[in-house]
Amino acid sequence: MKLYQSASSPNSRRVRIFLAEKGIQLDVIPVNLGAKEQFGADYRAINPRLQVPTLVLDDGTSIAEVPAIWRYLEETHPATPLLGSSAKERALITMWERRVELDGFAAVMEAVRNTVPGLKGRALSGPYDYEQLPALAERSVLRVKNFYVDLEDRLAQTPFVAGEVFSVADITALVTVDFATGGIKLPVPDGCPALKRWYESISSRSSAGA
Amino acid sequence: MKLYQSASSPNSRRVRIFLAEKGIQLDVIPVNLGAKEQFGADYRAINPRLQVPTLVLDDGTSIAEVPAIWRYLEETHPATPLLGSSAKERALITMWERRVELDGFAAVMEAVRNTVPGLKGRALSGPYDYEQLPALAERSVLRVKNFYVDLEDRLAQTPFVAGEVFSVADITALVTVDFATGGIKLPVPDGCPALKRWYESISSRSSAGA
Repeated sequence: MKLYQSASSPNSRRVRIFLAEKGIQLDVIPVNLGAKEQFGADYRAINPRLQVPTLVLDDGTSIAEVPAIWRYLEETHPATPLLGSSAKERALITMWERRVELDGFAAVMEAVRNTVPGLKGRALSGPYDYEQLPALAERSVLRVKNFYVDLEDRLAQTPFVAGEVFSVADITALVTVDFATGGIKLPVPDGCPALKRWYESISSRSSAGA
Repeated sequence: MKLYQSASSPNSRRVRIFLAEKGIQLDVIPVNLGAKEQFGADYRAINPRLQVPTLVLDDGTSIAEVPAIWRYLEETHPATPLLGSSAKERALITMWERRVELDGFAAVMEAVRNTVPGLKGRALSGPYDYEQLPALAERSVLRVKNFYVDLEDRLAQTPFVAGEVFSVADITALVTVDFATGGIKLPVPDGCPALKRWYESISSRSSAGA
């Protein structure tokens, strides 16, 4: 089993933290996004969407998309569950992780891809070129601010994003906060004590360095 | 178990088709989106994201987000699997369904929400108001056209979107094609024989009427 990924890719980090939490060892193959290696014929054969990360099984099957990779790894390495321990818990973790991804992570990604000069003409990842939309980037920043308000509300009620246990919802939320801090200069705002407490706790786990 | 949903909501239809394929009966509660019932206090208590559908369990737990609802229903009603029958198949179905959702379904939704007069100031669902962006709607139409190209390529290779078996990837793809046809006047284009063959086959299942 091999993981094609990039050190600078927030989606790759979602998988790296998952692997670190579960103690899974596998071959990690770097894809050099700066050198546009993801557009080359070799990587296109692995993932025609030209995105990282991609998990390649020993039989050659490519599994792309972070939730799909997580699902495969969880089912083949069930110890230390990160997707939940019952049907209800798995559904709630799926729900919370997805809210964090769509409202937070995707909004930060949209803000970055629609503004960074190096991504001109590449406002969306994948095989097609799309022009950047400055008005969309502005809207994305508003969305990230609203995401922080909602996450503060949630973490004032529960220790972890999906409830009582650490899960993939916390992984995506941590990657989102760090991506917003570095990518669009929107760290955890003042006046969010629950979010600050959670962030300090999650950041201090050894997996956060992954 | 109750499903709060709307007859006019494409996301609700993704769950209705799933229920019909599996033969699951449950209480279906209509939410009148035209009358803005989703913004009322009653529905806000069920789903603070103000979106349909939401599955409410007998213990009062709310499960929102289509993939989370599917996951709960599949695990509690395993007959006629629609999410896959092995770890590898489940991962591949997760991957293909997600690609259809992000590249196709979400692009149609974005085109509709950023143009329909009745959704002025409501370019995204949820508790926050965002202005429509006409340039974004134009980009969404390009994305839907590219989605059709990719789906034709895929269905020229496999009978169903995720491979050899009918799955949730076909459900989201069917809802996407019908939504694009009705919502932005982009039906299956000419010159897509595999997509046409697939569409006719999937549309003829009795679940398609759900």
